[in-house]
Amino acid sequence: MRQVRIAMAQINTTVGDLEGNTAKILHAIQRAKQEDVDIVTFPELAITGYPPQDLLLKPQFLHDNRLALERIIAQTDGITAIVGFVDQEDDIYNAAAIIHHQTLLGVHHKNYLPNYGVFDENRYFQAGVTKHIYQIGDITFGVNICEDIWYPEGPTVIQTLSGADLILNLSASPYYVGKPEFRRRMISVRAADSVVVVAYNNLVGGQDRLIFDGGGVIVNQAGQTLAQGKLFEEDFVTADIDLDDVSIAKLNDPRHRKAVLQMKLDDASMCQRICAEPLPARRNRPVLTPTCSSQDRKAHEPALSPNMLRAKEIYAALTLGLRDYVRKNGFQKVVLGLSGGIDSAMVATIAADALGADNVVGVLMPGPYSSQGSLDDAHALVENLKIHHHVIPISPIYDAFVAQLSGAFEGRQPDVAEENIQARCRGTILMALSNKFGYLTLTTGNKSEVSVGYATLYGDMAGGLGVISDVPKTTVYALAEYRNLIAGFDLIPRNTIEKAPSAELRANQKDSDSLPEYSVLDEILRAYIEHDKSIDDMIALGYEPAMVKDVVRKVDKSEYKRQQAAPGLKVTCKAFGPDRRLPITNKYKG
Amino acid sequence: MRQVRIAMAQINTTVGDLEGNTAKILHAIQRAKQEDVDIVTFPELAITGYPPQDLLLKPQFLHDNRLALERIIAQTDGITAIVGFVDQEDDIYNAAAIIHHQTLLGVHHKNYLPNYGVFDENRYFQAGVTKHIYQIGDITFGVNICEDIWYPEGPTVIQTLSGADLILNLSASPYYVGKPEFRRRMISVRAADSVVVVAYNNLVGGQDRLIFDGGGVIVNQAGQTLAQGKLFEEDFVTADIDLDDVSIAKLNDPRHRKAVLQMKLDDASMCQRICAEPLPARRNRPVLTPTCSSQDRKAHEPALSPNMLRAKEIYAALTLGLRDYVRKNGFQKVVLGLSGGIDSAMVATIAADALGADNVVGVLMPGPYSSQGSLDDAHALVENLKIHHHVIPISPIYDAFVAQLSGAFEGRQPDVAEENIQARCRGTILMALSNKFGYLTLTTGNKSEVSVGYATLYGDMAGGLGVISDVPKTTVYALAEYRNLIAGFDLIPRNTIEKAPSAELRANQKDSDSLPEYSVLDEILRAYIEHDKSIDDMIALGYEPAMVKDVVRKVDKSEYKRQQAAPGLKVTCKAFGPDRRLPITNKYKG
Repeated sequence: MRQVRIAMAQINTTVGDLEGNTAKILHAIQRAKQEDVDIVTFPELAITGYPPQDLLLKPQFLHDNRLALERIIAQTDGITAIVGFVDQEDDIYNAAAIIHHQTLLGVHHKNYLPNYGVFDENRYFQAGVTKHIYQIGDITFGVNICEDIWYPEGPTVIQTLSGADLILNLSASPYYVGKPEFRRRMISVRAADSVVVVAYNNLVGGQDRLIFDGGGVIVNQAGQTLAQGKLFEEDFVTADIDLDDVSIAKLNDPRHRKAVLQMKLDDASMCQRICAEPLPARRNRPVLTPTCSSQDRKAHEPALSPNMLRAKEIYAALTLGLRDYVRKNGFQKVVLGLSGGIDSAMVATIAADALGADNVVGVLMPGPYSSQGSLDDAHALVENLKIHHHVIPISPIYDAFVAQLSGAFEGRQPDVAEENIQARCRGTILMALSNKFGYLTLTTGNKSEVSVGYATLYGDMAGGLGVISDVPKTTVYALAEYRNLIAGFDLIPRNTIEKAPSAELRANQKDSDSLPEYSVLDEILRAYIEHDKSIDDMIALGYEPAMVKDVVRKVDKSEYKRQQAAPGLKVTCKAFGPDRRLPITNKYKG
Repeated sequence: MRQVRIAMAQINTTVGDLEGNTAKILHAIQRAKQEDVDIVTFPELAITGYPPQDLLLKPQFLHDNRLALERIIAQTDGITAIVGFVDQEDDIYNAAAIIHHQTLLGVHHKNYLPNYGVFDENRYFQAGVTKHIYQIGDITFGVNICEDIWYPEGPTVIQTLSGADLILNLSASPYYVGKPEFRRRMISVRAADSVVVVAYNNLVGGQDRLIFDGGGVIVNQAGQTLAQGKLFEEDFVTADIDLDDVSIAKLNDPRHRKAVLQMKLDDASMCQRICAEPLPARRNRPVLTPTCSSQDRKAHEPALSPNMLRAKEIYAALTLGLRDYVRKNGFQKVVLGLSGGIDSAMVATIAADALGADNVVGVLMPGPYSSQGSLDDAHALVENLKIHHHVIPISPIYDAFVAQLSGAFEGRQPDVAEENIQARCRGTILMALSNKFGYLTLTTGNKSEVSVGYATLYGDMAGGLGVISDVPKTTVYALAEYRNLIAGFDLIPRNTIEKAPSAELRANQKDSDSLPEYSVLDEILRAYIEHDKSIDDMIALGYEPAMVKDVVRKVDKSEYKRQQAAPGLKVTCKAFGPDRRLPITNKYKG
């Protein structure tokens, strides 16, 4: 029986933290040795964190990353480790080190470099061309990196046809809603197509706008899950694999045998076989029972509807993204304005879950048009969450602004200028608390508002992180329902959820004065922003032409605001920011 | 005599303005016909404007761009036109249409796609592989696009060796200081190396952060300039070229003849020859006298030192960048705060030059720590520039903030929180004027301040455009000297230039309290930001270790501020923004 024990160290790395990441890697190697593991893998670019962006253009950074790799190599006595790093040869490569028993056996250079969406890998890396395989004793495996495995014709195929029974993929695949399931399905099909075991290790953790969801998976040659890493948490996933089963499956698969022949006729020179002696000590160990962490945990929870399952996934993503942004940037506490509305209530709740209630400071800032109901709702939330709070009325400040501007504004009626002054009084108060006490300010705008510019730059947009700025308003409601459901009571006050949304910046203002109902608005926004539909396309879908044109115009003319927004956590397939790069100066009316 | 008359329409396109750009193209074609031109060229992606960014991911945009091309083709009776557009075939390409007498003879797909610095072309385009040549009667030419000509082994070589006597390059090459001269030199060498005439048409105009400087050039086969477009202005550049001279030069150049042979031995299949009949009417015209616009204009100006010539170039770039950002975004007037300091004085002056004094509103906002001297300097500037102004003291507003925050701040000493409140009072006043009157707010921070975070987010950083945010402080002084020199008097008050810089946010504050002298700071910043030097590198250059470390730390920890800054006009080889993409969450101390 050709048996191999694999471990996937699903670790939460931090960009630039070469010391800290190396310490995590060494710790996992130590654990793998204790658990009699043959091969331990790490996420993509584990040494540098992902994505290192323009740090890659600093020679010293590349050098330091290489020194870290050398430190790791020295600690691999008696084990094989596959570690992501940046390889500098004729150019720089997104690379995986194949380390065996204190020797660097080989290096895989990522063949497929993503350069779309949030990715800019062509900016940095040269694409690799080789797809070697490694034979350690009777274990033959191939290594590839993230994007490599998304291409049906990619390295996995060539490595398998050249003799690999096992593919070890190192990934840093960012989250958006539904992505974990989509990714698992792809890995399963890829394994079954190639008749090979795939161990797919995915990064976990928040990095600026991106949330890496982990959820690594080991699937067998039939595409069945052998082991699965937790979602949104670090994990250490192990599995024992019988490679003879892979051989049997290959011999019985006519597609596979035909493809081997075809590759021999084509150029197979990109794949060499690199061999090393096995380590003798590993063979007398009891076989592990397969575990699937995520599935186990589901058993303890109430049954959720598909909509609530989706909300659960997004909620977990936002919690991780918020926690890591705050902690990795060295902050302890956060501050945010509480209006009594759903958005700030949602953000406060996520923050309390992510950081602990004691690390959340809510500020109630009633102004000239604030209602008592809103204040009551905000107070109720503070009670429910048990967070700190201040009440700081803005009217005296607002009045001072209006008085000082009275000369310049002479003869003009109040309009959006006065509304924005109120929002900016609030932004300045939150930033003053941030400056005085070292809190990170959270912004609370949702994607629907941010899309149409229904937000005040330097006002409610002031802050270090946009927690729900990629969450459409209708999804914010779903998140609130989800959170109340698992709380077992209205943690987020029912009135906050049920009242008509209002910015309360003038008398009797309602969001619906200037915007379509959110259920309709969110559909139009999804079509326009996420799916690049034209005005004509959307009218053809049945939306009212004037409404479509008005929404598109509002989205387009708010681009300048979004380019000055705090980074926002990405949870949809297209978030604002690096994911959607539009000019501000833009006369296209599309 | 094989003679050809070329025109380069150096036009200022606007991204997304398919209608407006097409109108400019048609107008230039009309003019070219009137001037008996054989071939007229346009800048890169003239139909869409450059860079169109994610507009390229909208199918409707691609379709509309193609319709615009069809409209242009219909207007080319009796002339050849080379027009930049997006070609959609199996994928999308950054393309040039070779249009002859109402027929689309062929299309060149850009071979080399820039994906570094400010460029993201791999995000959008497939790289072309063919490098065809066109023969119209006895005129044989090749067409290529921008980056194509920067590579010594690029299409220019193959097109020339296959028989082209003339290379028509369409470019959108953005400005940074010294780039016009660097680019002209490269074109000259490229032409001489390949023994070919090069007509290099470069886009002119501002697009968000980027300034395209124009300055197109027609050089002969010896690398000598035949005609030159204006810098920072639209132009229509014509030249008559005797192609027999090119043939003679080729026959006499042993490097060229050896290379032709070599290419025949290599694969020459990427280059086809596409032929069309000549138009008979063009042959009886008097030969044009060569003109070099930029050089002519220099004769009317005072002799300038190299430092002042450099300041002149940057000043012209900023003026164009500001004007185009304001006008292309539909604004008439701008507003900015005037502190009496050099930065706001500089920005006000550029704005007055770009837009006319009547379109500039300066706001003096004295606060608790403002000096009378600063107010006097600001008033003097207003007088000199003849711009509008308001005086709006902030102390009553500041006092109201402090009063409202007194509970939350109880027991705390004043610190940066109170300083930032003052800056945010000012930012809010400027934005209120912007909102009320439709002014665009300009920010006035220079690159040195923005680098080390010596600026208040939502305070002095509030605004739509960072005019000098890529100009180091020492260069700001040079710009002031230049502007005063050409004014013939101290347009920018002498005291503003000579006094010690201060933010005046607390008593007796000076920039030098927290920062090294600007002459030293700017050198360290250039080494760290523009040249990616490490701390050790900079210490080895002789800078004081503690100072280097402090500056690097300040630059790194201010990244979050810069990511919320207004877009700033790029004038150095590496500006903040898309040119330098660093993570906020970043533990590397390099």
